[in-house]
Amino acid sequence: MLTQEENELLTRIGPGTSMGNLMRQYWLPALLSSELPEPDCPPIRVRLLGEDLVAFRDTQGQVGLLGANCPHRGAPLFFGRNEERGLRCIYHGWKFDVSGRCVAMPNVPAESDYKEKLRATAYPCAENSGVIWGYMGPLDPPPELPRLEWAALPLEHKLITKQYLECNYAQALEGDLDPSHISFLHAPLDPRGRADYQGSAGIPMSDRNLSDAALEPTVKAQDKDPLIVLLNTDYGMFVGARRDADPGRYYWRFTQLVMPFYVFVPGAVDSPLHCNAWAPIDDEHTMVWRIQYLTSRPFTEQEVARLQSGLGAHVPPDGYLPATSAPSGAWVPSANRGNDYLTDRQVQRAVSFSGIRGIWAQDRACTEGMGSIMDRTNEHLGPSDVSVIQMRRLLLAAARALQEHGAVPPGLEVTPPIMPSPTVFLPKSLTWEEISGEYASGKAKTHSSS
Amino acid sequence: MLTQEENELLTRIGPGTSMGNLMRQYWLPALLSSELPEPDCPPIRVRLLGEDLVAFRDTQGQVGLLGANCPHRGAPLFFGRNEERGLRCIYHGWKFDVSGRCVAMPNVPAESDYKEKLRATAYPCAENSGVIWGYMGPLDPPPELPRLEWAALPLEHKLITKQYLECNYAQALEGDLDPSHISFLHAPLDPRGRADYQGSAGIPMSDRNLSDAALEPTVKAQDKDPLIVLLNTDYGMFVGARRDADPGRYYWRFTQLVMPFYVFVPGAVDSPLHCNAWAPIDDEHTMVWRIQYLTSRPFTEQEVARLQSGLGAHVPPDGYLPATSAPSGAWVPSANRGNDYLTDRQVQRAVSFSGIRGIWAQDRACTEGMGSIMDRTNEHLGPSDVSVIQMRRLLLAAARALQEHGAVPPGLEVTPPIMPSPTVFLPKSLTWEEISGEYASGKAKTHSSS
Amino acid sequence: MLTQEENELLTRIGPGTSMGNLMRQYWLPALLSSELPEPDCPPIRVRLLGEDLVAFRDTQGQVGLLGANCPHRGAPLFFGRNEERGLRCIYHGWKFDVSGRCVAMPNVPAESDYKEKLRATAYPCAENSGVIWGYMGPLDPPPELPRLEWAALPLEHKLITKQYLECNYAQALEGDLDPSHISFLHAPLDPRGRADYQGSAGIPMSDRNLSDAALEPTVKAQDKDPLIVLLNTDYGMFVGARRDADPGRYYWRFTQLVMPFYVFVPGAVDSPLHCNAWAPIDDEHTMVWRIQYLTSRPFTEQEVARLQSGLGAHVPPDGYLPATSAPSGAWVPSANRGNDYLTDRQVQRAVSFSGIRGIWAQDRACTEGMGSIMDRTNEHLGPSDVSVIQMRRLLLAAARALQEHGAVPPGLEVTPPIMPSPTVFLPKSLTWEEISGEYASGKAKTHSSS
Repeated sequence: MLTQEENELLTRIGPGTSMGNLMRQYWLPALLSSELPEPDCPPIRVRLLGEDLVAFRDTQGQVGLLGANCPHRGAPLFFGRNEERGLRCIYHGWKFDVSGRCVAMPNVPAESDYKEKLRATAYPCAENSGVIWGYMGPLDPPPELPRLEWAALPLEHKLITKQYLECNYAQALEGDLDPSHISFLHAPLDPRGRADYQGSAGIPMSDRNLSDAALEPTVKAQDKDPLIVLLNTDYGMFVGARRDADPGRYYWRFTQLVMPFYVFVPGAVDSPLHCNAWAPIDDEHTMVWRIQYLTSRPFTEQEVARLQSGLGAHVPPDGYLPATSAPSGAWVPSANRGNDYLTDRQVQRAVSFSGIRGIWAQDRACTEGMGSIMDRTNEHLGPSDVSVIQMRRLLLAAARALQEHGAVPPGLEVTPPIMPSPTVFLPKSLTWEEISGEYASGKAKTHSSS
Repeated sequence: MLTQEENELLTRIGPGTSMGNLMRQYWLPALLSSELPEPDCPPIRVRLLGEDLVAFRDTQGQVGLLGANCPHRGAPLFFGRNEERGLRCIYHGWKFDVSGRCVAMPNVPAESDYKEKLRATAYPCAENSGVIWGYMGPLDPPPELPRLEWAALPLEHKLITKQYLECNYAQALEGDLDPSHISFLHAPLDPRGRADYQGSAGIPMSDRNLSDAALEPTVKAQDKDPLIVLLNTDYGMFVGARRDADPGRYYWRFTQLVMPFYVFVPGAVDSPLHCNAWAPIDDEHTMVWRIQYLTSRPFTEQEVARLQSGLGAHVPPDGYLPATSAPSGAWVPSANRGNDYLTDRQVQRAVSFSGIRGIWAQDRACTEGMGSIMDRTNEHLGPSDVSVIQMRRLLLAAARALQEHGAVPPGLEVTPPIMPSPTVFLPKSLTWEEISGEYASGKAKTHSSS
Repeated sequence: MLTQEENELLTRIGPGTSMGNLMRQYWLPALLSSELPEPDCPPIRVRLLGEDLVAFRDTQGQVGLLGANCPHRGAPLFFGRNEERGLRCIYHGWKFDVSGRCVAMPNVPAESDYKEKLRATAYPCAENSGVIWGYMGPLDPPPELPRLEWAALPLEHKLITKQYLECNYAQALEGDLDPSHISFLHAPLDPRGRADYQGSAGIPMSDRNLSDAALEPTVKAQDKDPLIVLLNTDYGMFVGARRDADPGRYYWRFTQLVMPFYVFVPGAVDSPLHCNAWAPIDDEHTMVWRIQYLTSRPFTEQEVARLQSGLGAHVPPDGYLPATSAPSGAWVPSANRGNDYLTDRQVQRAVSFSGIRGIWAQDRACTEGMGSIMDRTNEHLGPSDVSVIQMRRLLLAAARALQEHGAVPPGLEVTPPIMPSPTVFLPKSLTWEEISGEYASGKAKTHSSS
C-alpha cells in the first residue's frame, strides 16, 4: 500500500515530474525501425513521457525526433515534407534537420540571421538492430545505449512487437515482477490439456528438452505458492521463484528488472529468451514492447510462424485495429478493453483459468482493468508481492535521489551486457547465493527473501 | 429555483455526500434477477451511487455484490471465475464469497492467517420476485425490504423494464411529480385520434371501463391546468391532480412519491398499476425502472405482447443498443439522445404534440436535454410545479436531518405495503380529506394545495 | 509571442470575458437563411460565443434566436413546436415569440400574470440576402448591420459555405493575415502544372485576363518572401503583399481585416471576390464562413458548378459528414482531423507542396493541428508575421479599451460599404500611399511596413 503522495510520485512521468526526470536519464525505445522504412519516408507521430513528437528518417537514413509542432507558428510537423536532409513544415516551408537546426526559412530575407537563432525541440536518436531509441534527458553527449543483450543481436535472431496499453506503466510493470500469477492467470485448467489459450509458453521450440518441458505445466499447476527470493543488483533487481519439481530438483524461474522499465521475463524451459519494455506514452497510456530472441542462431521460419500465430506474442499487424491518428500508429490489438478482451465464459469454464485467449490479453484484462492509474492506497499486498514491493522501492528511491542530490540513476553505467537467465531445473542442494552467482547478470548488492 | 448549494445537495449522491448517505439508508434496486439467470453464471458489472461493483450468483443461488476490483492488487473481478460458492479473481486466484470473506488465497502459504484479515467490499443483497436489491448502508442487519406492493407479487403479475438515462436522477424524478405535463408532452393533437404515439396509455386492457376510458383523453386535453393538492405522508408524499370531467364528476389522477425515488404514477382508468424507480448510477446517469402490474390476476399473453410493443413501456431487449462494457449492461434504447430520439417533425405537425414516439422517449427528450445535472439556479417555477417543489423539500430535509442529527429517513419504517391509487372519476361533492383518506396509502402528515 | 495572460485574453470568448464582450458588440453571422427554409419550419440548434441557442423562423418569416433551454424547467426548446408566431416547449406548452416574450402558458390559470413577468433569453436577429445575423450585445436597438459589400448583394451573385473548425477562432483568423503561406501550403510543386490540388485559385472565370492569370503561379512560386505593408484603417487593417512580377510591374495581393473576424482575402487575378468570417462557436470551435461573389453580374451555372466541385471552396452538403446532434448542424467536411485530411504522401512528393486536396483542408491541417487553443507563449514569429502581430494588437487593444473605458469598438460605426480589393499587377513606380489610397476601402489611420 502506498500513500497518495507516493503513488503520484511513482506514476506521473510528464515534463517536470520527479519520475519523469528519472526516466529522461535513460534512452527510451521510441519506434521500430520498420515504422520509418526508408530515407525520406513519411514522418510519423510519437508520444513519449507525455510529450507529442514527430519522427522522420532523413535522406541519409538518420532519424530525427522533433517536437510535434513547428517552432514558428505551431503548425503540425507531422504533415511536413521529408526532403533532402530535413523535415519541412508545409505552412511556410521552414525546414529542420535531425538536430533541430533550422536549415531553410524561405519566407524570410536571405540576409536575415533569424534562422540561426532558432532551434526546434529535437531529441537525439540512435538506431540499433531494429529499434529506434530516443534520449530526452539533459546529458550532452547522451549516455551509451542500454546494454540489453538483445539490442545488438541481428534482426533474424529476434521478434519485436508493440502494443498500446490504456493504463499507467507502473501497474503493467508490476505484472512482470509477480512470479505467482502464472499459476492462475495464464494457466490451463488441465496442465496436460490444450495449450492453445496460453500464448507462447505452449509453443514448441525445435531444441527443447522434451521431458522437462512436459513436466513444467504440472509443476506450475501444483506449486502455486513459489518461494520468492530477491537480489538487488547494479542494474536493478534479480528475482528467483522456486517451485518444487521432483524429489531431487526445484523448478527455478528468474526475472530481472533492468531500470527503469525493462524486464527479462522467464519463459518455459528452452523457450526463446524474452524481454519486455514498458515505455510510458503518458501518465495513462503505455507502449509495451515484447522482444523474444535466440542468442545462438536465427529463428527458423516455422518458429516465426508459430510466434506470430494467434497464440503467440507477435500477432502480425492485421490483428490490430486501424487508428490513423493514434499516437505512434495503430497498436491497439483487436481483443481490447472495449470488447472485454473477447472473454469466452465457456472456455473459462472448461479450458483455461481466464477464458481469455493469449498471455498479452490476459495481462491487459488485469492491468487495464485496475483503472487508468491504479489507486494503491487501497490495495492489500500479501507475501507473494515482495518483488512488486521492492520494484516500487527501487523506482521511488532512484527518483528521489536524483531530485534531491542528483544521484546517477541505477543501471545507467552498467557495462556488461545484461542478459536474461534461462528457466531451469536445479538440484535442491544449491544455495541462493550459488544460484544467483551463476544466473544473475550484473553485480549483486543485497539479498532478501519472502 | 434553488441556490447552487441546494442544487449540489439535491443532486450529488456519491460516497460521502449527504444525499448519497440518505440514499444508502434504503435498499436499492440493483439488477433484474434475469441478469444473473442461474447459479455460477458469469458475473456482471453494476454501478450504483457512483460506486463500481460486480454482481454474481453463487452455487447456491445467492447473489453477491462486491467492489469491482479485487482488494489484493485491484484486478477487475468482472473477469472472475464464478465457481463453488465464490467469485475467484483471475489474477492470483483469490476467492470471495457473497459476504466478502476471502475463502481461498492459493498463492499464500496455507499456514498464513492473512486470508482471515482481509474483506472485500460486499453489500448485502436480497432477491424478491424478479428483482435483486442491494443495501449499501451502515445498518447491520439491514432494514426490511421496501414494502412496495408490486415487489412481492408473482412474476406473472408484472412487467419490469430498465433504461439507462444520461442525466441526474432528480430532474428525471421531477418529471413524475408533474401532473400537468401529460396534457402536453404525452398528448395527441386530436384526443380522439391515433393513440399510437402515446405509449401504454393507449393500450386497451381487457377489463377496462370503456365509456370512462373514452372520456379520458378529452378531459386531459381540455383541462390543461389541473388543481394540484398535496398530502405529506409517512412514506413521502401523496399528490392529487383534479380535472373537470363532466357536470357531476372530477377526473382524479393520484401520484405517490415513496422515498427516496419511487413514484407510483397514474395510468389511464383501469390500466395496469405502475411504479417507476429512479435509481442513481452516478451523479450524471440514472437507471430508471418501470414496473407495471396487476394485483388480481396475471397478465394475459395478449396484454404482455401489447405492453412490449413499440408503443408500450416494455420494449424487449432487441430494442436496445449493444454496449458490452456499459455499466449494468446494455440498457440504452435505440431512440436516444444521440439521434434526437428519432423526432419526426411531420408527426409533430400532424399527429402528436411532441413528434416523439412513446412516453419514455418523450420524457427522456425533456430530462436529458436539461443537461447532465440541471442548473436549478436559473429556472422559473410556476404554480403548476408545487409537487416538484415539495419533492425537493422532502429530499433536502431528509438529507439534512440525517446528516445533522442522524434522523431516521422517512419511509424506512413504514410497514403496510405501499400501493398505488387508481385513476378515477369521482363525484364533485367529495372533499380532499375524504379522497385522500380513501386513496393515499400510508399515514397522512400535513395537507397543502396549489 | 504572447504572454499566457495575453493569449487567454485573445482566445476566450465566452460570456463575461473581455474578448467575448468585444465580439458581442458586433452583429454575428449565425445561420444560413437556407437552414430555416420556410415559416414554421423545424427549429435548429446554434452555438455562438459559447452559448447554446435555438433558432426558429416564425409564421411571418421572422427569425428568433432563443436560449436553448426553456426558462421554466429547462427542457430543450430544440424539440419545440414551431407554430403560429412562436416556439412552444413540448414539456408544458409554454410558448415564446422571437422577442422572448411568453405568449402562452396553458398550464397556469388564465388570470395569473406570471406570464408577463417571464422573459426567455432572446437575441435580436436580422436577415440579409441569405444570411441570418444575431446580436448578443447590450445596445437596444442594436447597431446597424455590418457594411460588408457582399452582404447586400442578391443571392445569385454569391456562394456561401460554412465549415465547422475544431479549434479556436484566432489561430484560424491568423492564417488569413499571412501573405507568405500561399507560396508554400497552397502551392503546386510545378507552378505550370496541375492546379487540381489548389482549390479555387485554379478555377477559371469566364472574364479572366488570361496572360496575367498564366503569369501568376510563377510569381507566387518565385517570390516566396513578399514585402508586407500595413495600413491601420477605421474598420481594421489593410495589408499589401508585393511580389516581383516582371521588369515593370509588381504583383500585389491585398488583404483587409474587418473587425472583429472578417477577412477579405485576395484571390487570383480576375477571380471572384472573397470574404471569410471566423465566427467563434466556443473557445475551441469555430464556424468559418466562406463567401465568394461577383459585384457586376450573377455567377453563371458553369461557374457555380466549378466552385462547388471537389476543388472549389463550396463543396455541396453531401461532402459533409452526418452529425444529427452537432451544434449548428452537420458542417464537418469529409476530409478532417480524424482522417488526417486524407493526406496523400505520393501527391505530396510529386504534385503539390502539402499533399492535401483543396485550400480549406490545407488550412485546417495547419490550424487545427496547433491544438484546440494554440499556445502562443512558445512560438517564434519572424519578419513575415507582421500582419499577424498587428491583428493581435488590434483585437487585444479593442478588447481592453472596451473593458477599461467603454470605447466604441473599431469598425462598428464605419458607414461606407467595405469592399475587397482586386489582385493586380501594378507599375513599380507607384508608392504605397498611392496604392493604398486607391485600394484600401475606408479611412486610413497609420502606415507601417515589414
